[in-house]
Amino acid sequence: MSGRIRSEAFKQKVMSAHDAAGLVQNGWNIGFSGFTGAGYPKAFPEALAAVIDAKHAHGEELRVGVWTGASTAPELDGALARTGGISYRAPYQSDPEMRSAINAGTSYYQDIHLSHMGPQVSQGFLGKLNLAVIEATAITEDGDIIPSSSVGMNRTYIDEADAVIIEVNSWQSEDLFGMHDIYYPIGALPPNRVPIPITGAGDRIGEKVLKVDADKVVAIIETNAPDRNTPFKPLDDDSRAIAGYFLDFLGHEVKMGRMPENLLPLQSGVGNIANAVLAGLLEGPFENLTSYTEVIQDGMVDLLDSGKLTVASATAFSLSPAAAEKMNDNAAKYRDKIILRPQDVSNHPEPIRRMGVIACNGMIEADIYGNVNSTHVMGSRMQNGIGGSGDFTRNGWVSCFVTPSTAKGGAISCIVPMVNHVDHTEHDVQMLITEQGLADLRGLAPRQRAVKIIENCAHPDYKEPLLEYVKLAETKANGHHTPHDLATALGWHVRFLETGTMAQ
Amino acid sequence: MSGRIRSEAFKQKVMSAHDAAGLVQNGWNIGFSGFTGAGYPKAFPEALAAVIDAKHAHGEELRVGVWTGASTAPELDGALARTGGISYRAPYQSDPEMRSAINAGTSYYQDIHLSHMGPQVSQGFLGKLNLAVIEATAITEDGDIIPSSSVGMNRTYIDEADAVIIEVNSWQSEDLFGMHDIYYPIGALPPNRVPIPITGAGDRIGEKVLKVDADKVVAIIETNAPDRNTPFKPLDDDSRAIAGYFLDFLGHEVKMGRMPENLLPLQSGVGNIANAVLAGLLEGPFENLTSYTEVIQDGMVDLLDSGKLTVASATAFSLSPAAAEKMNDNAAKYRDKIILRPQDVSNHPEPIRRMGVIACNGMIEADIYGNVNSTHVMGSRMQNGIGGSGDFTRNGWVSCFVTPSTAKGGAISCIVPMVNHVDHTEHDVQMLITEQGLADLRGLAPRQRAVKIIENCAHPDYKEPLLEYVKLAETKANGHHTPHDLATALGWHVRFLETGTMAQ
Repeated sequence: MSGRIRSEAFKQKVMSAHDAAGLVQNGWNIGFSGFTGAGYPKAFPEALAAVIDAKHAHGEELRVGVWTGASTAPELDGALARTGGISYRAPYQSDPEMRSAINAGTSYYQDIHLSHMGPQVSQGFLGKLNLAVIEATAITEDGDIIPSSSVGMNRTYIDEADAVIIEVNSWQSEDLFGMHDIYYPIGALPPNRVPIPITGAGDRIGEKVLKVDADKVVAIIETNAPDRNTPFKPLDDDSRAIAGYFLDFLGHEVKMGRMPENLLPLQSGVGNIANAVLAGLLEGPFENLTSYTEVIQDGMVDLLDSGKLTVASATAFSLSPAAAEKMNDNAAKYRDKIILRPQDVSNHPEPIRRMGVIACNGMIEADIYGNVNSTHVMGSRMQNGIGGSGDFTRNGWVSCFVTPSTAKGGAISCIVPMVNHVDHTEHDVQMLITEQGLADLRGLAPRQRAVKIIENCAHPDYKEPLLEYVKLAETKANGHHTPHDLATALGWHVRFLETGTMAQ
Repeated sequence: MSGRIRSEAFKQKVMSAHDAAGLVQNGWNIGFSGFTGAGYPKAFPEALAAVIDAKHAHGEELRVGVWTGASTAPELDGALARTGGISYRAPYQSDPEMRSAINAGTSYYQDIHLSHMGPQVSQGFLGKLNLAVIEATAITEDGDIIPSSSVGMNRTYIDEADAVIIEVNSWQSEDLFGMHDIYYPIGALPPNRVPIPITGAGDRIGEKVLKVDADKVVAIIETNAPDRNTPFKPLDDDSRAIAGYFLDFLGHEVKMGRMPENLLPLQSGVGNIANAVLAGLLEGPFENLTSYTEVIQDGMVDLLDSGKLTVASATAFSLSPAAAEKMNDNAAKYRDKIILRPQDVSNHPEPIRRMGVIACNGMIEADIYGNVNSTHVMGSRMQNGIGGSGDFTRNGWVSCFVTPSTAKGGAISCIVPMVNHVDHTEHDVQMLITEQGLADLRGLAPRQRAVKIIENCAHPDYKEPLLEYVKLAETKANGHHTPHDLATALGWHVRFLETGTMAQ
């Protein structure tokens, strides 16, 4: 044994992943730890996939509901989705195999705001949670669980599940202890809820460990395996350009007196553009920054190292292999500056609205009136999910969405007459940025937004067709608040599906 | 003078509405009190309309931005819209003349969440607020303003405006004093915001009066005129049926242990169905109810009278003439049970989420996947606006939308393949109710929702065409998460525009 299981009672429960997986029954709902490829169980899901395959080979039914924090990894979503054994999946995924199962119609998927998952599980209408499978760095002598590289839904799943399995992963640094902040009152249901006492991103309000009823723990599995750490991609020109517009905007807001000189707590999505923004901040003029976000990426760690960022609050890491190694080697150093909270705290409307978080998230497409599609490709096909973008967008001081102006080598315009699915409504989208420029939509009526979005954000190849649509819509529309020609509003998407390009 | 202006300094500032209106300059933004036809200024707007007409008759330009709490009345929106003198309107309206100006394209309108208006005005990007025009019941000896039948945006407009005009309306009962709860810290901007100390609908946390810098007060106008009180319509069968499903659902939730026996704080929109729900509660089994909502309607007062409702928190009244008279005669009795708050408190995500408000709002249409359109008719035409429905829906314990299943004598199905505008996304809509039945969408993936919505909510005449669309979409869709045939998804609306009916 690794020496990380310090409770005598829990030592008795160590078993193989295969044996643990054998406990699962058809129709169960399982709550897994894991958020953006960090802190998910490494052994149990693949063992369960093998059990499912074996059952299916014998013509027996074994399908389960899979609930997580957010996205996981090939060893979890990939392995289980491949078996066809996932009946229902929530609240977020980004795995190719899982996505295929959803779009093939073999798995049901519910795309839920990450801050809503906790209350919805506790309300109970998602069904009984039969099992929680949670990764830990260690189990204390008192039988408390020290989480690993994400907190996500762990508290809720442990509290709500009938049975709990803990994977103790020796790859995760024990020095993560003290970085987590498990706020238990967040689980209170109305009418017994109280204010969340966070007024700054760095406020610690909870416990360092997850509590578990030892009687519910049915298995402990030992592992030694890294998180799904994705190599850092070199920044491309589009990402740099988008980051540049965003940082200029922040400077402008400071100048206008709408933000303090050290800005407001930053939230940023995951990916290239977010990394470019963080890289830009590293070179930029802002000092004493704070972050209240979901995920800590490489660039956030660099900002902490530079001293420009004083504290980062999130629910998970999402690091490159190199940055993950650095974090593992230096967790003791970082744990004063990094706070990992449950996702129903990291993404909660209350602290986000109170602190005035600056929200910046990626999108698939926006329309000329400022509605944003974050999830669907051509109307029907699920890409990943809304994740936390709604939690931050709706409550932030600034809400910004970013994308290159085209996709698929120019065959798709990311600015369209009407989005094929709405995840963020015109009421909530304040800023759109592409490599072409920034459209500040604040204070504008729909027709004013259309002018600005086309002018500032659309790719030159699509500007003229968009202006032609505006002209057509004005002649066809039954009202001039949000002029649309409903017969052709989705015509660009239809054309893409038929011809492979939105271009005429 | 009416004796309601008790400050000597303010007595000096009394003038005619006509003289006060003459102060307004072209390009000004004016913040008016008023919310759902309650507490709006009665004399100034019509005087301003006359000034605008006179200017326009002489070829002079006089156009203003009109900001309010929410909807007002013919004397404000109607009078000003008729002149063509409103350049920009926010955050909500429901006036026929105003609607015409918006849909004619002569007035820009921004449809803003009611809880967002305060912070957006304070951020300053809506432009300078030149003037606030606020209705009061009285001005105290110390120069404080006692609000009338709504609080709405009053605090923000008084604080942010360069100049303030107060209309003291003797029609409003002086016994409203003590009913208002003006929470000043809500105006703090980040990073200086603190938790809102509300844990129950009845918590009083603020001042009884509005504070004003006397130097900014440029005019006091005396009026004696009623609010726009709309006669109570007798309940129709559809409204009763919808209310019945909703109340059955609440009973079910109590039985399932998901709500306490006295429910959770109720929010309800305005109109027939809301009134039917309130009437149903009057006859129903629930006791010791509370309400945390925007608007107090007749039915809410009846519930208070019956003792079934212990407290009602809102930002405004919206009463029938009879109920308004009763309130005016008995305000002293009601002021322990009714709290009128600023709309950035009544509609704030923080207390709504914390207390677990039960949200129930009207809609124009929903689609088979649970997206809701609250604002637009056939894609382009603005009806009223989103109002507070987003504030409550996104943060409530339960979020429910209601409508009869058809409109225009059956020519319009209110359940459609794809809504023509999205105000509430699939992520936020938990329940749809029509006179046909209730679809509980919680925990369901899109394809599961489609089955339930069509089965439970669609009108029998439109069930078969909806099922045919589902079948078609399955064959055409590029993915089976949210199957759509984008070429015909909006075809029902197109057909209505071309033929006057959605029926084939």
